[in-house]
This record gives sequence, C-alpha cells and structure tokens, in this order.
Amino acid sequence: MKILLIGASGTIGKKLQENLSQRHEIVTAGRNSGDIRVDISAVESIKNLFEQLSGIDACICTAGSGYQGNFQTMTEADLLPSLKGKLLGQVNVVLIGQHFLNENGSFTVTSGILADDPAKNSACGALISGALNSFVFAASLELKREIRINAVSPGIVEDSFEQYGHEFPGFNPVPMTKVINAYLKSVEGVSNGQILKVYG
Amino acid sequence: MKILLIGASGTIGKKLQENLSQRHEIVTAGRNSGDIRVDISAVESIKNLFEQLSGIDACICTAGSGYQGNFQTMTEADLLPSLKGKLLGQVNVVLIGQHFLNENGSFTVTSGILADDPAKNSACGALISGALNSFVFAASLELKREIRINAVSPGIVEDSFEQYGHEFPGFNPVPMTKVINAYLKSVEGVSNGQILKVYG
Repeated sequence: MKILLIGASGTIGKKLQENLSQRHEIVTAGRNSGDIRVDISAVESIKNLFEQLSGIDACICTAGSGYQGNFQTMTEADLLPSLKGKLLGQVNVVLIGQHFLNENGSFTVTSGILADDPAKNSACGALISGALNSFVFAASLELKREIRINAVSPGIVEDSFEQYGHEFPGFNPVPMTKVINAYLKSVEGVSNGQILKVYG
Repeated sequence: MKILLIGASGTIGKKLQENLSQRHEIVTAGRNSGDIRVDISAVESIKNLFEQLSGIDACICTAGSGYQGNFQTMTEADLLPSLKGKLLGQVNVVLIGQHFLNENGSFTVTSGILADDPAKNSACGALISGALNSFVFAASLELKREIRINAVSPGIVEDSFEQYGHEFPGFNPVPMTKVINAYLKSVEGVSNGQILKVYG
C-alpha cells in the first residue's frame, strides 16, 4: 500500500511510521517536517498536499491536539486553534482527500479517550473527540468507491505518560503496541465506521 | 424558578415555553424574537444577553441547526455557520453563562440523535451533536457552585416530521411530550452530565 501519514513526527506518528514502513510505502506529512509540509488547519494547505500526491491507498492523521485549560476561564479564543486543527483539520482531510484516495482506500483519524472519560481541564479535547467519533460514523455511511473510515481513540499512551500522566490521575497508561494495532486494524483490516478504542 | 430559554421560537422552544411558563418565570431570547435578542454565534451577543439578566436559575438552549448536504461536495465553508451557531454557540452560552447563573442552577443544551444514528447528508449534524454530548460530560465535572449541565438529544419530533421526516427514512417520530419531559428532567430534576436521549 501507499500510505499518507499526516503527523508523522508526533509520539504516535513516529511509531506508526516505523511499523508501517516495514510493509508499505509511506509518505509523511507534517507542519515542520516530513516528505511534504502541510498545515491541516488551512484548507488550501490540505488541497495542496493531496494535489502533489497520487495513488494513495490509506490516509492516516495523527496530527493536532486539544487545548487544555481551566473551565472557569476558558473562552472561544482558547478553543479555536484546536477546533481548526485537530477537529476541522481532520474533517477537511477527509472531505478533500475523498476525491484523491484510491478505490478501496481508507481514512484513519485520531480522536481520544476524553470523549468518553474526560479529565480536569479537558472539555476542549472531549468536545473534539466526541465530534470526530460521530463524524466518522456518519462519513462511513457516505464515502463512495469502497473507501472506509475509522477513528482510533487512544488513552494516554505509555510514551507520553511521564510527560502528561500527572494531568490524568487514575488513567491507565496504554501500551503503544495496542495503539499501533488499532491503526493497523483500520488500515490493513476491513473495519469501517468504527471507533477503535484503546483505553488500557 | 427563573428560566432563560434561548431559541424560544423554534419547534421545541415554543412547546417548552408553553409548558414551563405554567410553573416558572420565563425569559425568552432569540435572534429575531423573544424578550431579549441574541445571536449565539457571536460571543459579544451572548455576553450582552447575560449582562442584561440577573437571578437566572436555569438556562435552556434549543437554538441552532446543523447543515445538511451532500458529503461528496461538502466543504468547510458549508460547516462553519452550524459550527459557530449550534456547536460553539451553545458551548459559549455555557462558558459565559456559568458566571451569571444562580448557585444550584442548570444548563440544558440540545444535541440530537444524529450523534449516534446518522442519516444521509447529516455528517455536520452528527459532528455537532457528538461534540456537544462529550462537552456536556466534561463540563459537568468542572462547573462550580452546584451548577448542573445536561444535553437533551432528541430524535425527529412529531411536530417536524411532516416537514423533515422524508430526509430521515426509518426514523421513528418522537412525541413532543417525551422531548419536553427530557428538558424537565434536566431543569426541574437532579440529572447532571447526562445525555437525555429521546429517540422514539
């Protein structure tokens, strides 16, 4: 397969690239690194990305993050960068990319455990992940040419736990191998319209 | 109770006002009608609304709608008005309103069945409703002064079925009395962090 991996420099993206590149041709894309530069918060940048590519079988997006902050002082301005990036960015990758992917291709977007199990300061991440999960379900009913779509919804992966674990008391660190497996189920398997939850 | 009802002129809002006004003092707000004018897609308009009010015990929002359209031609520009209105609008009502509601007050926002059971052309509505549901869950863990929050997630209500039912084949029309009861459970009951699903 030829796989477009957006967010390849991230914690999950790096490990995914390592794994997938053993069996597939990988094109990496990211804001500051990768084979092609893309800012998924900008529609034109996503269009530009896909127009440079051909023959993509699978598009994986692990880019974007959710704003974390105090609920009492949170404002729309705090939310907008995450909404434009992780939420609308991934939605736009699908809306635009659907016209470029090969028949029988697949999209895999990344939501997260906060949709179901929010922590302190995580209302933005919860909103984004809940939105992506329902979007994926709807999109799976609409995509043409046998293109599939799934969301991987990881908990806090082991690799991030030392850095971020203290913000998520009581959350079980999730083995990266299990997270990678969820992406493999989406890309190499036949899942469609699924939220592949890896909650540890 | 003193209840702020945003979206009082809508299909659900009108019936809610009829019911609630039998037992409570109602302040209605809407874009083109009501005691106070508000455009929930604008932060300043929401601030202006709450600054005109005092002593609100419950804030109900039934305003906003989700874009419906063909998934193959859908663009970010199609989604933005609904995202700013029904999604960010309701989120901003909570983020801003939390500082104005009485202790022991409540927020009730409106999501919808599409979060769980999307129909053709409804990816935007699915995204918005999924986002609101997860936001409500997160917000319920963070609101102070015993303020509660719930989402009512209605199916297609009987009163809208003649007009919209053909767009939702196989969806059961939902009795308005059941939808009203979900709002009453949120406003007059003790529910918190719940998605009150009324799917017929």
